[in-house]
Amino acid sequence: AAKTVTAEEDGDGDEAVAAGANTIYMVSDGTGWTLEHSVNAVLGQFEHCLVDRRCATNTHLFSGVDEIDNLIEIVKQAAKEGALLLYTLADPSMAEATKKACDLWGVPSTDVLRPTIEAIASHIGVAPSGIPRSSASRKGQLSEDYFERIEAIDFTIKQDDGAQPKNLARAHIVLVGVSRTGKTPLSIYLAQKGYKVANVPIVMGIDLPKALFEIDPDKIFGLTINPVVLQAIRKARANTLGFHAQNSNYAEMEHVRQELDHANQIFARHPIWPVIQVTGKAIEETAAVIVRIYHDRKQKCSMPRISKRV
Amino acid sequence: AAKTVTAEEDGDGDEAVAAGANTIYMVSDGTGWTLEHSVNAVLGQFEHCLVDRRCATNTHLFSGVDEIDNLIEIVKQAAKEGALLLYTLADPSMAEATKKACDLWGVPSTDVLRPTIEAIASHIGVAPSGIPRSSASRKGQLSEDYFERIEAIDFTIKQDDGAQPKNLARAHIVLVGVSRTGKTPLSIYLAQKGYKVANVPIVMGIDLPKALFEIDPDKIFGLTINPVVLQAIRKARANTLGFHAQNSNYAEMEHVRQELDHANQIFARHPIWPVIQVTGKAIEETAAVIVRIYHDRKQKCSMPRISKRV
Ligand SMILES: Nc1ncnc2c1ncn2[C@@H]1O[C@H](COP(=O)(O)O)[C@@H](O)[C@H]1O
Ligand SMILES: Nc1ncnc2c1ncn2[C@@H]1O[C@H](COP(=O)(O)O)[C@@H](O)[C@H]1O
Ligand SMILES: [Mg+2]
Ligand SMILES: [Mg+2]
Repeated sequence: AAKTVTAEEDGDGDEAVAAGANTIYMVSDGTGWTLEHSVNAVLGQFEHCLVDRRCATNTHLFSGVDEIDNLIEIVKQAAKEGALLLYTLADPSMAEATKKACDLWGVPSTDVLRPTIEAIASHIGVAPSGIPRSSASRKGQLSEDYFERIEAIDFTIKQDDGAQPKNLARAHIVLVGVSRTGKTPLSIYLAQKGYKVANVPIVMGIDLPKALFEIDPDKIFGLTINPVVLQAIRKARANTLGFHAQNSNYAEMEHVRQELDHANQIFARHPIWPVIQVTGKAIEETAAVIVRIYHDRKQKCSMPRISKRV
Repeated sequence: AAKTVTAEEDGDGDEAVAAGANTIYMVSDGTGWTLEHSVNAVLGQFEHCLVDRRCATNTHLFSGVDEIDNLIEIVKQAAKEGALLLYTLADPSMAEATKKACDLWGVPSTDVLRPTIEAIASHIGVAPSGIPRSSASRKGQLSEDYFERIEAIDFTIKQDDGAQPKNLARAHIVLVGVSRTGKTPLSIYLAQKGYKVANVPIVMGIDLPKALFEIDPDKIFGLTINPVVLQAIRKARANTLGFHAQNSNYAEMEHVRQELDHANQIFARHPIWPVIQVTGKAIEETAAVIVRIYHDRKQKCSMPRISKRV
């Protein structure tokens, strides 16, 4: 790929590493997203000490590292910075070499996926391939799954914000809620997981589309939120969009409360719609709740679960 | 949440588990997405034996499990099904109890995040909170990060498919390529990570928007793809949209080749745009390549890396 040198604009570079910060190196022969995801979850376990900055960390993600020389370079650099090195390397000899280099240079290290690889290998009685996802020998064929996800994303983008109510019947999941309850990011998150999602805004004085009451009510979910939090979000939004409080009652407390009351009345008339409280929840947390209920309704298991076959 | 019973529509339920399939239970006190993500990566290590179905697996994801009684129920059910149980539980006493129950009932089990939690704890010298993300005692405050991601998603949806070229200057990343090179799902994937993405289609006979040549060329990425694969994708797409080959040359090999040639000529005229080969790559793999180059250009490190501060 062509490269140029640009001015350091946002101070994200090395030289800006805060003194005393804890440094974590993450190294993958693949995308590195598994490490990023896992480390994010784990860092949640250290939120309590972010107040006094004892937990302040710098993470450095190195993806697509599949040559031993690069690995050794990174380990050396980790040693210099006093970093912890977390890695996911499919090739056992690469993983072994990395571990040895870390031990040699005094770098604490953990192979994040190895215990899971070994547990699955021994469960199904098959040895892992040891071939990284980036390897040329892996022929990435496009699976049915791939097309399903892409179709879900295309569908979901087109249905955003109440567009095309005639397509509500084709959605797997329909989200209903007032402005800024997170319908759009939630829809997109679910679409990535392969669900076709439509979202329908509740706006006072505007009737909900007739089609909403003609589809399977089992796939409709209401979103609700604490009015104080909603007002804060709307204020932030209004600033971003550059419109001001005096021109609109969008972020006014009285109006926010009325709109949420209006939404709750609609929800009360449709007790079959689960109403999901989004206050204080991250998008992926609300998504997890919705997907759980969705599968639960379809499967009627004694214990709610999301089942898949590979 | 309100619940109803619906007909089993797609045979996803328990009763449909294939005989001889390998069963994996995944249990989290949170969303379960970390487990899902990790297990997907690990299953990639067993693709080689999917041909003869030896690796066929059923996964069952149990999320939001934070009560010991539920945990024990799930372990018992795993024992009945002969399943492997993988778990992520923040509370060490819950994790310990689960491990004990698994040992007692002969269920093989692995705590997927524990080694990473312990590595980070000892690196930064702070004990983990042991509080699951779902706990009411965690006050989920909306971070700056939250707003940034939502803004990125809103921006990206609005810019999809060349809409609003006047906003190209505000994008972090601009993707350029012919139809069905995966610009939209890629844009959305990157938006979820907080990048504002615009994508601009290359269509023969239609000029690229003037704005594209007025913005910082460092943020523009070309996408290219093998013509045979592109044709297959377009055929699938044409079927989905319900339009037929005779009405359109969209999926004709000759046309596909011409369009890709046209795109490559444009790329050749702009050598500063990295050209990413998407053939055989999953969306998240292409995303990883783009993010790596993006950060590399900004940081000018000797070793490409994605750095963040928490
Ligand atoms: N589809 C796949 N096939 C083979 N290995 C994979 C696959 N997906 C992920 N992996 C491996 O799992 C680890 C984590 O992947 P990643 O999340 O891309 O960093 C890396 O060692 C990858 O090589
Ligand atoms: N922000 C967070 N705060 C505390 N714990 C978390 C956080 N995010 C994830 N976790 C924990 O990490 C594990 C995996 O989370 P999940 O991906 O939601 O299943 C679970 O044990 C969660 O309780
Ligand atoms: Mg990884
Ligand atoms: Mg999990």
